Amino acid sequence: MREKLKLAICQMQVSACKKDNLDKAGDMVNKACCRGAQMVILPEMFNAPYQTDLLAEYAESFPGPTTDFLSDLARRNSIFLVGGSIPEKDAQGRIYNCSYTFDEQGHVIGKHRKIHLFDVDIPGQLYFKESDVFTAGDTLQLIQYHGLVWAVLICYDIRFPELARMAALEGAQMLVIPAAFNHTTGPAHWELLMRTRAVDNQLFVVAASPALNPEASYQAWGHSLVVDPWGTVISAAGSGEDTIYAELDWTMVDKVRRELPLLKHRRTDVYQLNHNGV
Amino acid sequence: MREKLKLAICQMQVSACKKDNLDKAGDMVNKACCRGAQMVILPEMFNAPYQTDLLAEYAESFPGPTTDFLSDLARRNSIFLVGGSIPEKDAQGRIYNCSYTFDEQGHVIGKHRKIHLFDVDIPGQLYFKESDVFTAGDTLQLIQYHGLVWAVLICYDIRFPELARMAALEGAQMLVIPAAFNHTTGPAHWELLMRTRAVDNQLFVVAASPALNPEASYQAWGHSLVVDPWGTVISAAGSGEDTIYAELDWTMVDKVRRELPLLKHRRTDVYQLNHNGV
Repeated sequence: MREKLKLAICQMQVSACKKDNLDKAGDMVNKACCRGAQMVILPEMFNAPYQTDLLAEYAESFPGPTTDFLSDLARRNSIFLVGGSIPEKDAQGRIYNCSYTFDEQGHVIGKHRKIHLFDVDIPGQLYFKESDVFTAGDTLQLIQYHGLVWAVLICYDIRFPELARMAALEGAQMLVIPAAFNHTTGPAHWELLMRTRAVDNQLFVVAASPALNPEASYQAWGHSLVVDPWGTVISAAGSGEDTIYAELDWTMVDKVRRELPLLKHRRTDVYQLNHNGV
Repeated sequence: MREKLKLAICQMQVSACKKDNLDKAGDMVNKACCRGAQMVILPEMFNAPYQTDLLAEYAESFPGPTTDFLSDLARRNSIFLVGGSIPEKDAQGRIYNCSYTFDEQGHVIGKHRKIHLFDVDIPGQLYFKESDVFTAGDTLQLIQYHGLVWAVLICYDIRFPELARMAALEGAQMLVIPAAFNHTTGPAHWELLMRTRAVDNQLFVVAASPALNPEASYQAWGHSLVVDPWGTVISAAGSGEDTIYAELDWTMVDKVRRELPLLKHRRTDVYQLNHNGV
């Protein structure tokens, strides 16, 4: 197992043009790799505008142009690549908010279909209904590679402490979260939730948002960040386009869990969290 | 059901003298009631120094001097009184970190024995082992009164998202948390955890700490606070002795749960949280 991993989050501004989005993702990932990143994370819906009435026309099957592009990008740079998320169409025509992860050879080593769909109605502030276009996933997958174990969750998934906890109980040392909070939920809850999932589960949390795009119908909050297992933010972006870096020291997971053994102190005689999805 | 409730937290400095502690609690509660409080909360271990080698000698059976005093205090002021917590001895001589809640007639309407005991060892910063003296409780109790539903958790219990979630699923609109974080965990995690439990479960969180006592062996963090169901801190103390007030508008619980229906969006087909303790 590697003791340290240098990680980059590309907080890219997403436009309505898929080709431009892939070009930009490619440029930002290549630059991050030149600066030594061994793992790179793209944001939620990095290849399409986050608009429920448009997502269907951007949807691709697997393999498809975007996943081929990501596979190639990972292989050429010899990195782990968490391909944010894209609208993915299955053989039955259902569309998912889906994240693919690639290894250094460009092979898919992880796939997560967003389990919790974001349906919200805050009068005068925010209306968004993901379930108008997406079908929900039902599987939490742990990615085990080079001795590291992590899970990818997407955005609204992080609001449900059960899912992060399940990942930790199944061995995750890190949660990677392509996500796009907005200007209502972002200032209120973004950093709070990312930090608490790290503290409760004593693991790294890596959250990748698109940059704010003033022309988009959905205004992403940005503020991508990396939180360590004690809850300290070790790297953070603002709202604009930026790539941020962090070096993750995996020994910290064991240290924090040894000093304050939260996972051992759970009272499984009083409650059980059961997992049916795998 | 009352639409609003005026609540006070007495963040009292606790000394090694039980009589002084009860006198001070009485004075602070009486003053809070003069200012209109309908519910008053005392901190964790408000009648005894929080020192594992001393707690056994302060332990009382129920009914005992401290619970009689609290019952009388609630009845005379005609308030709900959450009596922080005290070391409580059962018939077999086991000692619990226990909280009693009293109604306006002085009757016990709630009892919570701390379920998660705080055993921590952070070299050079913090060593504390509650299990040296306490037996753990195993029951989560919901208090239903005048149409309101709440649960009392004690300090380390709040670190376990399962317990707060169980309370919410069983109907809690508020968590009341007598607690004593310290100068390691306090600045790192106190407000973060209280706010996230409120946000995740869309309920009020009311956390009552002792004031800092520079002469004590365990240095409480203070910073008692009240958080609303959107995660906003609506009242907060510093580290010194103080009484803080908040008016709780119960309609906010329904409003937040309607606008962002987190509890309905849980994927119980993917995970279940099962509760054996009641």
